[in-house]
Amino acid sequence: MILLDAAATTPVRRAALEAAWPYLTGTFGNPSSVHEPGLAAARGLAAAREGVAAFLGCRPAEVVFTSGGTEGANLCVKGLALGAVLESGRGRHVVTTRIEHEAVLESVAYLERVHGFAVSYVETDATGVVSPDALRAALRSDTALVTIGWANNEVGTVQDVAVLASVAHESGALFHTDAVQAVAALAVDVRALGVDALSFSGHKLGAPKGSGAVFVRAGAPLEPLLHGGGQERGRRSGTENVAWAVALASAAAELARDLGSSQMHASAGESRPFATTGPGDERRSSQEHAFEHEFRDFVTTGLESIPGARLTGHPTRRLPRHASFVIPGVNGETVLLELERRGVIASAGSACAAGRTEPSHVLLALGYTPDEATTALRFTWTADVTAEQLEQASVALIESVAAARGPE
Amino acid sequence: MILLDAAATTPVRRAALEAAWPYLTGTFGNPSSVHEPGLAAARGLAAAREGVAAFLGCRPAEVVFTSGGTEGANLCVKGLALGAVLESGRGRHVVTTRIEHEAVLESVAYLERVHGFAVSYVETDATGVVSPDALRAALRSDTALVTIGWANNEVGTVQDVAVLASVAHESGALFHTDAVQAVAALAVDVRALGVDALSFSGHKLGAPKGSGAVFVRAGAPLEPLLHGGGQERGRRSGTENVAWAVALASAAAELARDLGSSQMHASAGESRPFATTGPGDERRSSQEHAFEHEFRDFVTTGLESIPGARLTGHPTRRLPRHASFVIPGVNGETVLLELERRGVIASAGSACAAGRTEPSHVLLALGYTPDEATTALRFTWTADVTAEQLEQASVALIESVAAARGPE
Repeated sequence: MILLDAAATTPVRRAALEAAWPYLTGTFGNPSSVHEPGLAAARGLAAAREGVAAFLGCRPAEVVFTSGGTEGANLCVKGLALGAVLESGRGRHVVTTRIEHEAVLESVAYLERVHGFAVSYVETDATGVVSPDALRAALRSDTALVTIGWANNEVGTVQDVAVLASVAHESGALFHTDAVQAVAALAVDVRALGVDALSFSGHKLGAPKGSGAVFVRAGAPLEPLLHGGGQERGRRSGTENVAWAVALASAAAELARDLGSSQMHASAGESRPFATTGPGDERRSSQEHAFEHEFRDFVTTGLESIPGARLTGHPTRRLPRHASFVIPGVNGETVLLELERRGVIASAGSACAAGRTEPSHVLLALGYTPDEATTALRFTWTADVTAEQLEQASVALIESVAAARGPE
Repeated sequence: MILLDAAATTPVRRAALEAAWPYLTGTFGNPSSVHEPGLAAARGLAAAREGVAAFLGCRPAEVVFTSGGTEGANLCVKGLALGAVLESGRGRHVVTTRIEHEAVLESVAYLERVHGFAVSYVETDATGVVSPDALRAALRSDTALVTIGWANNEVGTVQDVAVLASVAHESGALFHTDAVQAVAALAVDVRALGVDALSFSGHKLGAPKGSGAVFVRAGAPLEPLLHGGGQERGRRSGTENVAWAVALASAAAELARDLGSSQMHASAGESRPFATTGPGDERRSSQEHAFEHEFRDFVTTGLESIPGARLTGHPTRRLPRHASFVIPGVNGETVLLELERRGVIASAGSACAAGRTEPSHVLLALGYTPDEATTALRFTWTADVTAEQLEQASVALIESVAAARGPE
């Protein structure tokens, strides 16, 4: 089986499970307890927080553990928007795009429906890129929050978050980025990005489902989503899932090593939020070159061998190991079934929307017709997938499209 | 080490970890994906949902998996109250007590602070019991929600939830019960209880931290807490933590066996929400008698051997395996340190508030003075603790109090 649906989820890294294991067995205390079993758990949690902080480039106190990406997006979008209104007296206005993940879009819709917020949707270009000028035009002097995803899950387009955050800050708005897809592939440095909050999920990077964390800048106004005993410095109440916090830190550390130390710890101003298929970048590591070759080979096969296939998203400003197509006239679900018969696991787009009949809201927002959107295919993979497997998958894709098209 | 702080957390049951293991290794798919790896995960999730439904006595579709008790309380309290207002046109009025867990109290405070709700706090008696008449007096014709915990975590008092829910329904209000402490010890049958929602945590009953579920009656209006991809029938978005759902179902099934089949599946009207130290109940199982003896022996030792010691909470309507005292004049934290030196792990009260300097809000609400409240001790244990260990703990308690009092 060749797994090309890493954007949906990834296997748990062995190191992450091994790191978590003591906290599922002997060291089972409640980290809020003040006796030794509790203190031992609290030490594990503190070490995990330091690990995640190192991964993100922030202080440990700026890390809030969550149950995953959706909770993180809900916490940051609702929490910062309400926090800005209640604590800072900002207006009830949020700016986002129409290509965000549902966790962001539905959080924004909740603010609109229940809390009386107005929402402005910045247009993207046809590849999904948000321009600074478009964002600037959407901002009001009292905008509470801008929330724009770092990398799009369906089409892979990567935004220049550092520039967009800076534009948001010019008007005094807070900036959150949904980094669920980005963190698995791009070096993170929240200071260089200049965001007020960044949310991500563990299970996209080899930590278990149910793990996740957010960065919230010290001093940012945040209305919690979960109120209660005051854990996580009052920002996320509830007994901490120590084992999954430890697993997340372990997976993040292993990922950072995978990505290559050259990508990590970029100093401010040297952030590399974009993917790496553009020319002329002296700082690209060999790891990045490998991404580029994999991607180019896979996409070239798809585009040259399948009549009518078109790459969706941006051709270069996109996630490595992410290839997405529409193939007008060919039903995507049929192709996926044919691919699965050939041992290749891929998807049409977001797993969260898989199985639904509506066409992708992302592709519609990018100008594709509903018919075109139903032909979407997405291939996303991890470093564990070999060049040979990708080549096999390319062959399977060509065969599967032919099978789906049927006899002429 | 003798663990008498089971109300804070419990070790993960081996069976629960073994049940979860496949979903942390080979069966790692995203249950929303429509390919086989996803479908395999979805089957595991569905089986877990059936298991939890059997434990609660409800339909699988009425189970919503959460990340724990705090999320569950937040979801039910905020979700039902807002749902009742937004969908059913109820008034912005909530009824609760002052002895609830912080997850409930702070959720109610959020409704008051951000959503303009009015809150009525029903008085309890000095043992923590809420009378039906007191609740009836607090209700308004348009009350949206009543939220009263089934069993108090600090003093162990168990409410007659079936009667209280019925009183709430007379006025058209919804009823939620925080069952985090109760489910570990009392047979659950949500139909017999008649509640609209019940929330609980996994880690109090031998499932991992980060697991939990809520029952929400089919048709009850519920504004979600986490918005997004629409998982859990739209009531709790976010990729499901399949492994912990499976672990929760496994732990619940094992607990149900521990508690004895005679307690399970009580038909409507035969619910046994009260603990079992009262006389004259023909249906008590030998398991229940064991609870009673353990409790009586432990409490008798404490009350007879320690001058000034007083049991907090109700003497009979209380959780089995839960003994709580105040010992005026003796600092509780000092006694706990002395106990720990003697190998006994206990607590002053809620772990969520451990380490804070403020006296327990529960004890203050029950009429204890701040000074008395700082002398609180809580002993809570599981079936794994033997009679011999309890006897040793009694001796250690007597010694520890003497040591804390110092030389005469």
